[in-house]
Amino acid sequence: MRLADVGEFALIDRLTRGLESRPDVALGVGDDAAALDLGAGQLLLATCDCQVEGRHFLTRIATPNEIGHKALAVNLSDIAAMGGEPLWAMVSLIAPPDLDVSVIDGIYDGLRTLAARYNVALVGGNVSSTSGPLTLDITALGRVARERMVTRAGARPGDHLLVTGNLGAGRIALRAFTAPGATPPAVELALVRERMVAPEPRGREGLALAATGAVTAMLDISDGLAGDLGHICERSHVGALVDAAKLPVDDATRAVAQALGEDPVAQALAGGDDYELLFTTRPEDVARVMEAVRAWGTVATVIGEITAFEEGMRVRELDGAIRALAPRGWDHLAPNGAS
Amino acid sequence: MRLADVGEFALIDRLTRGLESRPDVALGVGDDAAALDLGAGQLLLATCDCQVEGRHFLTRIATPNEIGHKALAVNLSDIAAMGGEPLWAMVSLIAPPDLDVSVIDGIYDGLRTLAARYNVALVGGNVSSTSGPLTLDITALGRVARERMVTRAGARPGDHLLVTGNLGAGRIALRAFTAPGATPPAVELALVRERMVAPEPRGREGLALAATGAVTAMLDISDGLAGDLGHICERSHVGALVDAAKLPVDDATRAVAQALGEDPVAQALAGGDDYELLFTTRPEDVARVMEAVRAWGTVATVIGEITAFEEGMRVRELDGAIRALAPRGWDHLAPNGAS
Repeated sequence: MRLADVGEFALIDRLTRGLESRPDVALGVGDDAAALDLGAGQLLLATCDCQVEGRHFLTRIATPNEIGHKALAVNLSDIAAMGGEPLWAMVSLIAPPDLDVSVIDGIYDGLRTLAARYNVALVGGNVSSTSGPLTLDITALGRVARERMVTRAGARPGDHLLVTGNLGAGRIALRAFTAPGATPPAVELALVRERMVAPEPRGREGLALAATGAVTAMLDISDGLAGDLGHICERSHVGALVDAAKLPVDDATRAVAQALGEDPVAQALAGGDDYELLFTTRPEDVARVMEAVRAWGTVATVIGEITAFEEGMRVRELDGAIRALAPRGWDHLAPNGAS
Repeated sequence: MRLADVGEFALIDRLTRGLESRPDVALGVGDDAAALDLGAGQLLLATCDCQVEGRHFLTRIATPNEIGHKALAVNLSDIAAMGGEPLWAMVSLIAPPDLDVSVIDGIYDGLRTLAARYNVALVGGNVSSTSGPLTLDITALGRVARERMVTRAGARPGDHLLVTGNLGAGRIALRAFTAPGATPPAVELALVRERMVAPEPRGREGLALAATGAVTAMLDISDGLAGDLGHICERSHVGALVDAAKLPVDDATRAVAQALGEDPVAQALAGGDDYELLFTTRPEDVARVMEAVRAWGTVATVIGEITAFEEGMRVRELDGAIRALAPRGWDHLAPNGAS
């Protein structure tokens, strides 16, 4: 059986099955980052995520600077999703030997600029050559007080479901650049392109949300809204009802989707590279958590609610009809990303 | 200019130039692992190292189990070289989608078995597909008390230079398997092959050496004796005189070298995949540090001494002649590994 036949999430299950728990591992495989006990109520957050040319980025679309930015951003996003403060990062650069050094210089410029903005120190890494595509694997390390950490596991029926920012831009940008003969409007395309190639990690928002003490579950949307909501439902043993009419989709995304003949709501649900925070809170805390992220200039939107596990994941369509929502997300093993 | 024209070490210099120091980074780029301040005199050790098919391993020589073992071993070796205790590891698996899952199962068996032996918890990672070769990038995290940590920077003229175990087996095994028409003796080939594909990290020896408080500098030999000794000389601002007659080369390595018409001493100096610990200590402490590793069944050998920086790196040949020793090591960017 080939890897592609197994699928990303089944493979991860297979590889991590039976990993024993240990007192020094507060949280192992299965959340945005591992949480490791440092003593004195402090947890080390550790995550690594990989970007492969042709798979996570395309050099004909993204500049070297943007490639470096994104490789670190997706990791900082994971630390943010736990409510943690990022501190340190290490970079594995796996590159073809005939790659021009100026590309690497650009990548490191992007890495360093983003690292500086979030006060992250680049403390190590390694370089290696490959006969394959340019690959960047980054490890980010951060810290969170044990009582501040937010996992995927705390959502309860009745909680409201919220998301920061807007959805669907990354996915529609990728379609615009890869669909043959597409001619989306230029200004809007530039806007969604930026969201795809240089997503901003919600670092300050994640810290602010955790500080409220009112967020019951959180993760970042890297696999698409439906896929990542599936992770919350699975870990929290709950269902969810998403209201399609409330999904935040910006004008540029709508315009590009329209030009491509795509449904913006479907794009927002399937998502892909959003790197927004998806989180839950009790109804009485909604105003307070929205205010916490608004302090950083970011809007959070209520997009649905958490229900009983037995009700599963559902979406209320624009016409009011309710249908089941498959927890499908981005599969990093499948050739076209579909799971 | 292409990456291969720059070379591994010049590239690392280029990429890490100007990284500012921070109070929470006790040791950044430039040693076996980064050392990050956790407070209360404790340092987090963090390192990541990558294994690429066709570059660091060959699937026609190494079994999946051995590939997994080695990918973790090289990282545990880095933690050991700082005198640290390994605690946690994360695995980035970057694999072609048509790879058979049984290969991955075997790799994770190897990883898990070695992790269990050193009490390392596998706490996370990621999987991704690639159009290129199978690649494993592993991050290892460990801990060391600040006063116990051993870096590359403390060697002083007059110190003795020692190495654990034997040298040259990994390199001669690679030559035996890649030289056309080579017919080395089978039993000896099996022995050196094992050293190449499944090196044992010197985890307990590294801890024991650090506990003596008498080791002035240490690293693990991953780039070859000459290259890694060059790192100690550079960081400690010293020279070194290696005594070729004292280099520990086992009988199997000698036999395979002889069958290939290779000089075993040259193989030991150029090295490659030894993963032995190279370290320095004051003459009066030699007996004590040798005893510390012997407690773990491992022999340490005095192979030379540290000299003044101005004398550079030299080797006393078997015939007594002294010549300069170039700090050449394994270049992970060059097509054939030579720098």
